[in-house]
Formats: sequence, C-alpha cells, structure tokens
Amino acid sequence: MKTVPVGVSARHIHLSQEHVELLFGAGYQLTEFKPLSQPGQYAANEQVAVIGPKGSFGKVRILGPARKRTQLEVSRTDAFSLGINPPVRESGNIEGTPGITIQGPAGEVVIEEGVIVAARHIHFHTSDAERFGIKDKQLLKVKLEGERGLILDNVIARVSEDFALDMHIDTDEANAAGAKTGDTATIID
Amino acid sequence: MKTVPVGVSARHIHLSQEHVELLFGAGYQLTEFKPLSQPGQYAANEQVAVIGPKGSFGKVRILGPARKRTQLEVSRTDAFSLGINPPVRESGNIEGTPGITIQGPAGEVVIEEGVIVAARHIHFHTSDAERFGIKDKQLLKVKLEGERGLILDNVIARVSEDFALDMHIDTDEANAAGAKTGDTATIID
Repeated sequence: MKTVPVGVSARHIHLSQEHVELLFGAGYQLTEFKPLSQPGQYAANEQVAVIGPKGSFGKVRILGPARKRTQLEVSRTDAFSLGINPPVRESGNIEGTPGITIQGPAGEVVIEEGVIVAARHIHFHTSDAERFGIKDKQLLKVKLEGERGLILDNVIARVSEDFALDMHIDTDEANAAGAKTGDTATIID
Repeated sequence: MKTVPVGVSARHIHLSQEHVELLFGAGYQLTEFKPLSQPGQYAANEQVAVIGPKGSFGKVRILGPARKRTQLEVSRTDAFSLGINPPVRESGNIEGTPGITIQGPAGEVVIEEGVIVAARHIHFHTSDAERFGIKDKQLLKVKLEGERGLILDNVIARVSEDFALDMHIDTDEANAAGAKTGDTATIID
C-alpha cells in the first residue's frame, strides 16, 4: 500500500524579502511560529491582510522563509470571496495570474501577479519516490476514504532530497473529502 | 455512458410555513424568483440571515415551497465560518443536528436542530433510473473530468416520478473538482 499523510493547506502567502520589508519595515525578518512538514519551512508569526476587488481577508498567515517572488495561495471558495479568478497552478508558476493588494503594519504592496489556487501535489523524499516507484512530475490518482470518500485525479508528484512525504490539498478539497491534516491517503495509480 | 448534469448547491435554507410567518409576518407566502431543476421547486425572492456562534451570513437564499421542517444546508467551509459542526446528511434527516439563529425582516427564529452538510446525491426520474439500471438509495461512483478531475464515492441515488435528472454537489465539492452547474458527470459504478 502506497500510503501518504495528508496535509490541508489553508489560504497563505509567501513573501519576497523586499515585500516583507515594505509591509513590516526596513530590515524586518520573518519570525517562526511553528515548523511545517517540509524541512526548513515554517508558519510565521506575522500575518497580512489581502484585499481583492470584491472582498478581503484580514489575517492571512505568512509561510517562511522569504522566497524569490510573492505568491498568495487561496482556495476557489476564497477566490470567489475576493472577486478574482486565479488558475490552478503549481507553486512558483505565477506568470499571467491575477494580482492582489497586500497590507501589513508598515505599508501596502500591490502585486501585478501571484495569486494561484495550488494544484494538489505530493512531496516525496527521493527515498519515498524510489520505494513507491514514482517519478518527479508524475500525475497520480489518490484515494481518500470515508463518508465523503473520493479519488483525486492529477495529483502531481514532486520529488526532492529536501522534501518529506506529505500530500497537500486545499480546504475545498479537504472539505469535499471530509479529510483533515493527519489523515492518510492511498496512491492507487 | 451514464451521464448526468451537475447542479452546484450554494448554501440555502428551507423554511416551514410557521417559520416563514415568524420571519416575514403573519400570513406571508414565499414568492418565486426562479425555478430550480426539480419540478415545483424554486429559489424564492426572500432571503434571511443566519447567525452562528462564530460567524454569520447576511443573505441566505430560501428555496420554496415551504416544507414540513426548517433546514439549513451549508458547505463544510460555511460551517467553519459559522462555528458549528453539522453532519453530512440526506435532506430531511435532521435529528440530532446543530441548530442556528435565523433572522428575517419581521422576526427571529432559533431552531434547535436542522443544519446539515448535504450528502451528494443524484435525482433520477423513474425512467432515468430504469434506463441506467439504478435503484433508489443505491450508492454510486461518479466521475468529474478536468484539471481537478475526481471520482466521488457514496453518491446517493434518489429515484422518484417527481424528480428530474440532476446531480447535486455543494460548493466545496464543486470547487475541489473545478466543476460548475451545467457540467456533465459520468456514473462509473
């Protein structure tokens, strides 16, 4: 059985160091609130507001450390609330995506692009991928059991020495499946 | 191919005539805004507010005609916003479910039970069920195609002379699948 732990990603944002400083002040560094499943990644203490044409969210968690480019990840439900129509994309692939207004305690940033609905994916450590016979970028079918059980198609495999085994789905997917962080899913194909 | 049209149900409420009158005034009758896919059912012009322990929704559409018992149907995402934990249930099966506060222009009603997350289901006219070889209450597997394609397990068949062929999923399920009203799904098992 190719089983993987499930991690549910609520809406969150990655910021460039330039944007961290525009939002929180010159020289500001993000501080760690708690570690995430992927080595070196953390939920920061800091939060920002994001403002769309229709709605806003007052407290969006920043995930650290700072990245090359700022990226807001929302569910489709969130996107309707904000009044934007972001595509389903892999993290980092933000060309041509909608922008958003971001507010922090020290300032505001308007990004021209960077809002995505994250494509569901599984992080595999190289050793897990070998054990399961799975290659980077492979598209998988993954089963979630239960009353709202379902099989997710097009789950992207991401393989790296830097990853820990974890499947990331968003809150729409988790709620549709009745799943929560810590559940177990099975790769069936 | 056993194909069925998809209907996405946003949060909505069914009211008893007693509650219609408490919320809108003595003798008040719901008025039709537009017909729904099921014969005789309609979205009403009237809306109410629903208030949970954590959050509220200001404008929840009433579906008519009035029913025996008041029932609020929300997505899991909505339930988190409201601060309640309703079970996944078939419509009408509300015993032991959470209550909610409902406000209309003429008054307020507090129901002790009646909030559910609707179990995904397909309405079949008797002739559709015969054609597909499907029985009332049968649990089906249904495929939704696309970038976020998935297979839903435990889709409940509901067969009646009074039904028109339509699969009802909630907004979490629709968003997880990248599906919208008017899409087509395929019963695979």
